[in-house]
Amino acid sequence: MTEHDRIEGRPRCHCGIFGVFNHPEAAVITYFGLHALQHRGQEAAGIITSEFLPEKSKIRFNSYKGVGLVADVFKDEKILKQQLKGSAAIGHNRYSTTGASENEFNIQPFVVNYKGGNLALGHNGNLTNFHTLRDTLQSEGTIFQSTSDSEIILHLTARSKREEQIERIKEALELVEGAYSLVILTDTSLIAARDPHGFRPLALGKMGDAYTVASETCAFDLIGAQYIGEVEPGEILVIDQEGVETGALKSYHITKAPRPRHCIFEYIYFSRPDSKIFGENVDKVRRKLGKLLAQQAPVRPDSNDDRVVVISVPDSSNTATLGFVTESNKMGEDVRLEIGLIRSHYVGRTFIMPHQAGREFTVKTKFNTVKGVIKGRKVVIVDDSIVRGTTSRQLVRLIQEAEPKEIHFRVTCPPIKYPCYYGMDFPSRDELIANRCNSDLEKIRLELRVDTLAYLSMENLLEAARTENGAHYCTACFSGDYPVPMDREISKDANDT
Amino acid sequence: MTEHDRIEGRPRCHCGIFGVFNHPEAAVITYFGLHALQHRGQEAAGIITSEFLPEKSKIRFNSYKGVGLVADVFKDEKILKQQLKGSAAIGHNRYSTTGASENEFNIQPFVVNYKGGNLALGHNGNLTNFHTLRDTLQSEGTIFQSTSDSEIILHLTARSKREEQIERIKEALELVEGAYSLVILTDTSLIAARDPHGFRPLALGKMGDAYTVASETCAFDLIGAQYIGEVEPGEILVIDQEGVETGALKSYHITKAPRPRHCIFEYIYFSRPDSKIFGENVDKVRRKLGKLLAQQAPVRPDSNDDRVVVISVPDSSNTATLGFVTESNKMGEDVRLEIGLIRSHYVGRTFIMPHQAGREFTVKTKFNTVKGVIKGRKVVIVDDSIVRGTTSRQLVRLIQEAEPKEIHFRVTCPPIKYPCYYGMDFPSRDELIANRCNSDLEKIRLELRVDTLAYLSMENLLEAARTENGAHYCTACFSGDYPVPMDREISKDANDT
Amino acid sequence: MTEHDRIEGRPRCHCGIFGVFNHPEAAVITYFGLHALQHRGQEAAGIITSEFLPEKSKIRFNSYKGVGLVADVFKDEKILKQQLKGSAAIGHNRYSTTGASENEFNIQPFVVNYKGGNLALGHNGNLTNFHTLRDTLQSEGTIFQSTSDSEIILHLTARSKREEQIERIKEALELVEGAYSLVILTDTSLIAARDPHGFRPLALGKMGDAYTVASETCAFDLIGAQYIGEVEPGEILVIDQEGVETGALKSYHITKAPRPRHCIFEYIYFSRPDSKIFGENVDKVRRKLGKLLAQQAPVRPDSNDDRVVVISVPDSSNTATLGFVTESNKMGEDVRLEIGLIRSHYVGRTFIMPHQAGREFTVKTKFNTVKGVIKGRKVVIVDDSIVRGTTSRQLVRLIQEAEPKEIHFRVTCPPIKYPCYYGMDFPSRDELIANRCNSDLEKIRLELRVDTLAYLSMENLLEAARTENGAHYCTACFSGDYPVPMDREISKDANDT
Amino acid sequence: MTEHDRIEGRPRCHCGIFGVFNHPEAAVITYFGLHALQHRGQEAAGIITSEFLPEKSKIRFNSYKGVGLVADVFKDEKILKQQLKGSAAIGHNRYSTTGASENEFNIQPFVVNYKGGNLALGHNGNLTNFHTLRDTLQSEGTIFQSTSDSEIILHLTARSKREEQIERIKEALELVEGAYSLVILTDTSLIAARDPHGFRPLALGKMGDAYTVASETCAFDLIGAQYIGEVEPGEILVIDQEGVETGALKSYHITKAPRPRHCIFEYIYFSRPDSKIFGENVDKVRRKLGKLLAQQAPVRPDSNDDRVVVISVPDSSNTATLGFVTESNKMGEDVRLEIGLIRSHYVGRTFIMPHQAGREFTVKTKFNTVKGVIKGRKVVIVDDSIVRGTTSRQLVRLIQEAEPKEIHFRVTCPPIKYPCYYGMDFPSRDELIANRCNSDLEKIRLELRVDTLAYLSMENLLEAARTENGAHYCTACFSGDYPVPMDREISKDANDT
Repeated sequence: MTEHDRIEGRPRCHCGIFGVFNHPEAAVITYFGLHALQHRGQEAAGIITSEFLPEKSKIRFNSYKGVGLVADVFKDEKILKQQLKGSAAIGHNRYSTTGASENEFNIQPFVVNYKGGNLALGHNGNLTNFHTLRDTLQSEGTIFQSTSDSEIILHLTARSKREEQIERIKEALELVEGAYSLVILTDTSLIAARDPHGFRPLALGKMGDAYTVASETCAFDLIGAQYIGEVEPGEILVIDQEGVETGALKSYHITKAPRPRHCIFEYIYFSRPDSKIFGENVDKVRRKLGKLLAQQAPVRPDSNDDRVVVISVPDSSNTATLGFVTESNKMGEDVRLEIGLIRSHYVGRTFIMPHQAGREFTVKTKFNTVKGVIKGRKVVIVDDSIVRGTTSRQLVRLIQEAEPKEIHFRVTCPPIKYPCYYGMDFPSRDELIANRCNSDLEKIRLELRVDTLAYLSMENLLEAARTENGAHYCTACFSGDYPVPMDREISKDANDT
Repeated sequence: MTEHDRIEGRPRCHCGIFGVFNHPEAAVITYFGLHALQHRGQEAAGIITSEFLPEKSKIRFNSYKGVGLVADVFKDEKILKQQLKGSAAIGHNRYSTTGASENEFNIQPFVVNYKGGNLALGHNGNLTNFHTLRDTLQSEGTIFQSTSDSEIILHLTARSKREEQIERIKEALELVEGAYSLVILTDTSLIAARDPHGFRPLALGKMGDAYTVASETCAFDLIGAQYIGEVEPGEILVIDQEGVETGALKSYHITKAPRPRHCIFEYIYFSRPDSKIFGENVDKVRRKLGKLLAQQAPVRPDSNDDRVVVISVPDSSNTATLGFVTESNKMGEDVRLEIGLIRSHYVGRTFIMPHQAGREFTVKTKFNTVKGVIKGRKVVIVDDSIVRGTTSRQLVRLIQEAEPKEIHFRVTCPPIKYPCYYGMDFPSRDELIANRCNSDLEKIRLELRVDTLAYLSMENLLEAARTENGAHYCTACFSGDYPVPMDREISKDANDT
Repeated sequence: MTEHDRIEGRPRCHCGIFGVFNHPEAAVITYFGLHALQHRGQEAAGIITSEFLPEKSKIRFNSYKGVGLVADVFKDEKILKQQLKGSAAIGHNRYSTTGASENEFNIQPFVVNYKGGNLALGHNGNLTNFHTLRDTLQSEGTIFQSTSDSEIILHLTARSKREEQIERIKEALELVEGAYSLVILTDTSLIAARDPHGFRPLALGKMGDAYTVASETCAFDLIGAQYIGEVEPGEILVIDQEGVETGALKSYHITKAPRPRHCIFEYIYFSRPDSKIFGENVDKVRRKLGKLLAQQAPVRPDSNDDRVVVISVPDSSNTATLGFVTESNKMGEDVRLEIGLIRSHYVGRTFIMPHQAGREFTVKTKFNTVKGVIKGRKVVIVDDSIVRGTTSRQLVRLIQEAEPKEIHFRVTCPPIKYPCYYGMDFPSRDELIANRCNSDLEKIRLELRVDTLAYLSMENLLEAARTENGAHYCTACFSGDYPVPMDREISKDANDT
Repeated sequence: MTEHDRIEGRPRCHCGIFGVFNHPEAAVITYFGLHALQHRGQEAAGIITSEFLPEKSKIRFNSYKGVGLVADVFKDEKILKQQLKGSAAIGHNRYSTTGASENEFNIQPFVVNYKGGNLALGHNGNLTNFHTLRDTLQSEGTIFQSTSDSEIILHLTARSKREEQIERIKEALELVEGAYSLVILTDTSLIAARDPHGFRPLALGKMGDAYTVASETCAFDLIGAQYIGEVEPGEILVIDQEGVETGALKSYHITKAPRPRHCIFEYIYFSRPDSKIFGENVDKVRRKLGKLLAQQAPVRPDSNDDRVVVISVPDSSNTATLGFVTESNKMGEDVRLEIGLIRSHYVGRTFIMPHQAGREFTVKTKFNTVKGVIKGRKVVIVDDSIVRGTTSRQLVRLIQEAEPKEIHFRVTCPPIKYPCYYGMDFPSRDELIANRCNSDLEKIRLELRVDTLAYLSMENLLEAARTENGAHYCTACFSGDYPVPMDREISKDANDT
């Protein structure tokens, strides 16, 4: 059960990136790769290919981008087959900006021309010293065509005095701070890079003679590529013809060596359960989240003839719910997994809400309850997270209509209290329910109108995400402990990545 | 986990109908109703409203139809608010015809003008004496503008010599045979009718002063209507202003009284699990299908340290899988429910398949495996049905790549061996795997390449669908026992409903 | 200079029809034919082809219609090449209905299926006994799917008891009254028919082995067909394989023999000047209109050093203006033709008028004056007709801004005082300026604010249109002398042809 | 008769620009302005507005651009009214690039952000030192996002070390060479600028309290603005709030003072006849072109009973043809103006040419002959120019089919032998018929298959364009005398303006 787009009020996804080198149908492969990463960004998509024109003995970059799902943007096969020719390609899924009119300028991958030739870039993450760098660049006469922080990287590369292109890119990446997983297409190579903290995932794969990189490994499964490993935090990996032939890819490292801090929210909600990120299967971590939550905050039947019913908020909490139920039963509780919420997958970008008369229509067009399994029961809802609280409250109201005996809300992460500066689209602090209620669980419980409410503890969260090699995580949205400081309060514009 | 559109090779859905009377925003309500019924037909949608024009003291019928999902066809709010004014409306979801060019003529509801005024009709089902009636009508000088059998009902109504419109409709319905659940809009009323066998579901609901009818009750949940009961087999229910005011709706009955024969496949696959049809919750029946299948064809661990993993083909077999697992455990088997297949919900109408090089791409764009839960395990796949077998074979191959120890395929209905003449879109006999393999289970098993294969027995199927009031079912697709004969081999055209 | 669409307040065009038989690319030829007839209807277009399917040994009718110009509706070449296969085709251009939502049902050609096979029909004109026939047919149980009078012909054909299809069509045409030029496609033939009065034009042509029919001969010029002659008033011409092979087309005649009455307004405004209709070149007649108007209502210089400037309202009065100027000079007046109005051809269907602040924007987006040729001059504007007067008044105001000495308005037809029941889209009597001003020329002149105003006299109009073979004309819109009475006041619906 | 888009093989138009300052509906006014300038570029259009946001006390630039006619791009009124708010705006019409995929990046106006705030630019013309400047900028680390030369101006402005924005722009314009008429929108002003040679026109107007600039004055007529005068060659005119209030606009001058060299082809073909450019009415010049051509190369009747017929190629040669006829008659020749070619205005961007079988279809879909006026006559065709010769040859063939006695081709300019580096889209030298035939008139005549052929002499061309204030012209396309040299052979990319 793929985890992806959520209704208003939930964290919206933040970009998926993909690249392939040395494949005769690079655009087609990228199309499939972006489709597998669709959950990371549904608002716009773009593909850039690099094509060698034998008659002119030169490289041409072909570009096609548009607003909508990958399948909508590339619904005409001619785009992939005729317009996007070439054996190397990068692609990007993104979520929308508020300023619709300038939208098209912010759709990635960006493609520019500079003294070193063509350069295209797809970025997942957020730069934290964006404003400082932008001010400096502007004072030196640079113009900006997008409001995206990603454009900075291109300017820094172009302005580097170094000779080699890879050195220029390295210099640029040593100047930017924050979160970035990147795919860069040059006239001769595909470059994959990741910030020293490794906030966002980025994996390397191989299919036949071609190399491929993707935000998540589920993209490799679709195209039939073999997972090789992660692009390491701080690594700049160059995939070029020589690398293809020798089998040895050139690897450069950014000369900053902080302790990696992976985004733990990728495990909780954002990545697909069938992906492997940060060296671990998402599905496995998510199962543990449910298991530890069951230990930490169990719900017990009142009597022998009572039955506790556990329902998931599909599809994103399905895996954790399974863990919760299995562990509860192992602990001797008589709880039963039930399908209590049916989700409609027809609610997409174009769905209009013409009926003002009821705000709960929003949640109802997406979810319906199966009354038989809820009525008269002690119901546990397992959800992955609570952000604004709006959707959770509507969901609870919906379930209430099915007349359960009690509602127990269980959340597979701690309260979200801080904004994310590294690429997760949380709202401002004021809108977060945990902040609005001053982290007072009882207040949140009353606002949601549930009988009990429990969040997974930070200890259990870290325990669930513990890996053999001892991964470290960014938990800033829960703890306020930011691995990289912001140069100033991030404006909405800067968040657009 | 809603059950709806399936990939190529599966039964495609066959129309959802909806109607509302006496609501100031009839089109908006119908829009939401059709959205809830989207799984019954994703290829085209239409809404007709009847609007009283005070300045002309006359009724005008407004119509809007188009190709695509409900949300796509009605993506401009102005259509619902300005173009489709009126306090009564009917709507229809349909699946596509092959002949794209004549498509628009076949999109329902149909709307015509005859001596009795305006008439609009939405039909779910198939008429079996279509050819005979069409020949007769044509010989009398009738012209046909669609290739749909539904148009027949309008002609018969218009040609009836009876005085009262309701009598004309009754006469028409006594002439047609086969399956029909209908919503009819007249200048003064909304009429809901159902064939004497009650093949397809049709429910009546009430929201405030308005009445509403829908193929399934999940539509009532979305709009907040109360379920009153089924439109009875053979009933013609007239909802008009008088009925609204007195609270007593006029009910007529078709003078044929066969034993009702509900389509049992609605329970198995087609209806949503959160709906109540034929007087029973779909979810409940589907659970029993899984339970009885577990009893009939259990899969046992080989040894103590072995573990059987049961996975569902999401979303349509989720409920039955839950029943299978619960019952298995009750029987003492150590089986575990796992989420082994992740489904992408981004594969819609516009999804192109540019890569010829691999047929399995089709299933891969829709499903991915969670390798960790499959590898090395004895895996049970629970699916609702097998039609052509193509998708099942591809699914098995996909799961095979995750290296399970064994694959055991369990199907929650008997082998499908006969076409449906009453509205379910099965392919021709030659294409059904059960026919191709002469009902030889071992042959089918080998074709699917699974370790064991079991279909639910007819006895268990009927047992699962047994209701207190002793419902009878049409099981023709399994048994060849057709309650109503066909007037001649149904052509592709006649199937277009 | 082609005469075609006019701005708000002018007579809008009323359908062009085209047909071709025995051409391997019938749809492509029809596409070009409709393009040449675009001026007769810009709101919607449709093409029907009849295709022989060898594998099924049967005929299939393919249909494609849409809203917009021919080039917009058929902008995808695949529609013409792949979807509309077949060696016979008919096409139709139409103007829009008010009821946008039911629009699609009224787009012609209509295509139906009846006992005699497939039947498609394209109609130019209006039936006058539409209501009587519709009432009769409805009382006999016929349903109507469009609001168009053209559908009647199909019903009458289907209900005829005669054996032969051609006899059925003949019977149907003997029952309808009014104006019709028709193209009918059957399973085996293309039929062209024209009402006994011959209100609307219809010509027959030949290109290689193919026959073609068109509203105007300009369509033949584009496709390179030879003009053979007119389809005669009252003639039903059958073009089938036998006719193609023998070179002798079967001709039937409607057994009514009134004196033909061609629509004289086709010469004045509606047809293209490069067409030959009713046996005469439009350009030639239009020249004479100008010539006789110059004789009837000359404008003379005040003195020797004065100069009269004659300007045309492009493009529709260009030819008549040339006649006016030539004749004036022949008469010894010193008048000079000038290009005083520049017309923008970019004002199409999608042009929006966002600026409320000025009604004259409407005319300004279409016309601009060339100030140098107008300033200080005695200006004669030659226009083809005045309907509501709104546009004329705005045009005069526009010219006034260029500061002419005087403005003399000359109209190449008499005042329009009566509605047309035979297919020309004039507004209701109340809206016609000649009626609003009680045919008082002085009142009209004051309303238009011109120095002098003259309309061509009826005598001169008939003189200009006089042909060698003594054609007779319908002049009802000027004289109220209707050759065929209306069965009742025509509603807006009936006008939709 | 407006002069605008031409069929394949003719010079395509090269951009129209428009700006308005201090008008509450700046976008609406720009929409109308661009509509009036539509003939200068039909492939794409864009509008940028600057909007003051009181709640944020800052300026926001709003942008909307798209492919197609102005009316198509802005067909939704909401774009103009809601999305493009603000009291200052600039707009641009452009013709298409070959590289469709990167098209959107090349649609103007460009809008960027730099240290001085927002900057938007619309450019008509071509820069000649584009390559040199681009190389320099790139070597300093500048990235380019379009392939347009116009982007250079923005980079140079941003990189200027001067303090004042106007000084920066001035510096930038002193660095670029070639042809540019510009509208620039800044946070506080609208700037209009023109290169020192004044190659392209640019006019200043006033409507109430608002100022407006436009490529041609016909835009002022539509919006009701008063023409004030030209933006002078080398002038940078700043329209800001202070200027609005004081009535005195600030004017800066580029410190290069070559003799102005206006593009004489604007008079011959490109501008609308109702515009005033370079201080003279286009209509007046074009009349003289025809007059002098009649003197230079008259066509005489063979005998008394013979008649010479002069026909124009509508709409672009209408005015010159009138001059030709008037002068011929004044000279005593008995020639007669006739409308011999009817032009269809329905051939737009979407028109497809499905029929391979005949190349002459292209010209036939656009033109048809009026046979009656041509047959048996000595025909003179007056055309504005001959570029490749393809269209002329097809036109002659079309006329030939109408069986004239003789065809005499007259061209109102000299042979085009050299490409234009200043913004006119002529093809390469090899494709120009005058080059292909080595300027041998007899060879051209034979290729066109006409009886006589004459081009207007250079002397007569300059005489016709002679103005009181002694304007100087660029005649490079005829003479090869380039006022500004090119930095290197211009690539296709550089032409894209």
